[in-house]
Amino acid sequence: MRGFPRDEFESRVARAQALMDAQGLEALLLTTEPEIRYYTGFLTRFWESPTRPWFLVLPATGAPIAVIPSIGAHLMGQTWVEDIRTWAAPDYEDDGISLLADTLIEVTRDDGWVGLADQMESHVRMPRAALKQLEKRLGSRALVSDGGVTRDLRLVKSDAEIAKIRTAIDVAARAFDRVPEIAAAGVPLEKVFRDFQRLCLEEGADWVPYLAGAAGQNGYHDVISPATEAPLQSGDVLMLDTGLIVDGYFCDYDRNFSLGPPNPVVQSAHARLIEATAAGFEAAKPGAVISDLFHAMAGVIGAEGSAGRLGHGLGLQLTEWPSIIAADHTVLQPGMVLTLEPAVETTDGKLMVHEENIVIREDGAEWLTTPEPDAIRVIS
Amino acid sequence: MRGFPRDEFESRVARAQALMDAQGLEALLLTTEPEIRYYTGFLTRFWESPTRPWFLVLPATGAPIAVIPSIGAHLMGQTWVEDIRTWAAPDYEDDGISLLADTLIEVTRDDGWVGLADQMESHVRMPRAALKQLEKRLGSRALVSDGGVTRDLRLVKSDAEIAKIRTAIDVAARAFDRVPEIAAAGVPLEKVFRDFQRLCLEEGADWVPYLAGAAGQNGYHDVISPATEAPLQSGDVLMLDTGLIVDGYFCDYDRNFSLGPPNPVVQSAHARLIEATAAGFEAAKPGAVISDLFHAMAGVIGAEGSAGRLGHGLGLQLTEWPSIIAADHTVLQPGMVLTLEPAVETTDGKLMVHEENIVIREDGAEWLTTPEPDAIRVIS
Repeated sequence: MRGFPRDEFESRVARAQALMDAQGLEALLLTTEPEIRYYTGFLTRFWESPTRPWFLVLPATGAPIAVIPSIGAHLMGQTWVEDIRTWAAPDYEDDGISLLADTLIEVTRDDGWVGLADQMESHVRMPRAALKQLEKRLGSRALVSDGGVTRDLRLVKSDAEIAKIRTAIDVAARAFDRVPEIAAAGVPLEKVFRDFQRLCLEEGADWVPYLAGAAGQNGYHDVISPATEAPLQSGDVLMLDTGLIVDGYFCDYDRNFSLGPPNPVVQSAHARLIEATAAGFEAAKPGAVISDLFHAMAGVIGAEGSAGRLGHGLGLQLTEWPSIIAADHTVLQPGMVLTLEPAVETTDGKLMVHEENIVIREDGAEWLTTPEPDAIRVIS
Repeated sequence: MRGFPRDEFESRVARAQALMDAQGLEALLLTTEPEIRYYTGFLTRFWESPTRPWFLVLPATGAPIAVIPSIGAHLMGQTWVEDIRTWAAPDYEDDGISLLADTLIEVTRDDGWVGLADQMESHVRMPRAALKQLEKRLGSRALVSDGGVTRDLRLVKSDAEIAKIRTAIDVAARAFDRVPEIAAAGVPLEKVFRDFQRLCLEEGADWVPYLAGAAGQNGYHDVISPATEAPLQSGDVLMLDTGLIVDGYFCDYDRNFSLGPPNPVVQSAHARLIEATAAGFEAAKPGAVISDLFHAMAGVIGAEGSAGRLGHGLGLQLTEWPSIIAADHTVLQPGMVLTLEPAVETTDGKLMVHEENIVIREDGAEWLTTPEPDAIRVIS
């Protein structure tokens, strides 16, 4: 089934309102795709267009109010949101700001606080000048930090959300299994990238927002570069890392492949990555903290202190709070979905990266991906 | 050839610096993907991850300075940018802010102005709390409006940029021509969407950030909804609207298809859309203003005043400045790439939309897409 039953959204809103109450927030203002989708189910690829701002107001009680461009009224009308206020965007004089201000004033008291995301991983998706206009119009009401309300709620996934993430993961698994159909010495990396996205779609992805990867002898220099025209060569390690979407939820994991028999450096690095991932998995129990996972993995890859982050949250977005770094002391709770993503240096400044997805359960971690064995996949 | 020669970027920077000088800006601070890519060529899909902020500082003279997470150092090192300053992001205490502040202070004077995008279609891609931290650290230096410097430069494309947009358009054209392979009565719309993205990849898209569309008798209710499981039916109008990317540049246009012989309502609406597009094309000459295009098209579709926007800029992003609305008086200049996107109501609140892409030349508009004839495409 696509989407969620209404009570999923009611539950999210009720939990948000409890946290808002504890912080003295009389409303939340949401401006970004994942925030608005989290509370409404409003799913569209139209966010790719930067022209129009979109707003959701979550009052202290009751359902959210959408304050959106009229082009979105029909689609928002299919969600559980009933109070939908629109304007003809783009409006060069007043692009929804007075409508938004009136709505916020309606649901808050004089001197009331309106929470707006302001912490790491967030941004305010509206023009800076419009935000200043809004603050002016709000008068005695203040736009304050949301204290991470939405971020904290999104940390813990419902069973329905976990099922969607698992569906995305299973689609990617079938695509990874078909990589030998598309990768061989002589094939340009950019063609492998195109064909891998095609495989993801054939296996059931709605779309493929993210694909990174690389190929090289003994590893690769980074994991964020786009594909080049350079052909794969015998002996290369090929890494593909995908974030594909099914019904609005991401997977995010990679697989490494050796073109021909792996050399000992590559095989040994791969085995170490698998060992590190397993160590992270073992440490991932309710009550542990995120830094425990970091130290467990860093202990295996032997790069503690310089290893960057070794995983992160996953769900509505490719990467979500928290980051698996030494400084993160978030307590693990059942329902948290995480990636475990250790990296090791091989030779000449090159590296290899491995990534799996897990969910925290009452009695420990559960694999969402089927964990890779020590031996790297070989394309012969 | 992927990318651009170095002089393309030097020219962009020189023009930006001339505009900055005229406004008294001693530096620009860029935070979003298209802004940073415009001046550097830094192309990655890693922006899909919201975790890390990325910064580019453009001083009053000389080349830009990248202030970025260390994970991007290798890729940025392959652009023409030489001054690359990195930090180990995410850093929960100081996520690049002191490094950025030091850089801005280094290239500006006491009381100097740093320009930051603040107008429509822009946002600041960093946490609101971090932006406040930055302003505090800058002391007497002020973050002021960039006055639209980068937006205005991006309005006019170079021949090299236009060539890339044309390549993307040609890829989509071949995919549109193959729609009869994938669409037929009984096929769920979500499968058509998947298969159309596959066709785009097969024909040469690097990726497909945007696909919208709809299907229904006599038209459709909106153009931003995701695909449903509902099967296509004989007599449906199917519309597919894609923004695919080749080498970092978008196309953005649609095609309508009738499943079986079109009924008169649909054929007549389609012909009117083509007529409106042609009227917009005729009006699109250097020296005309954007509102002239709006009125030319609105005159044909007979919905002046309620027609929403009838097209927009196109390039690094799916939609760019300006919007083709009555309130936009931007003067057309050679090198501007626009979409013409009229819509008409058919019956029962349904609509049909048509979209073509053009470039403004010295002597008038030139089609980048091959304009559609009056007759709607028929899938038999």
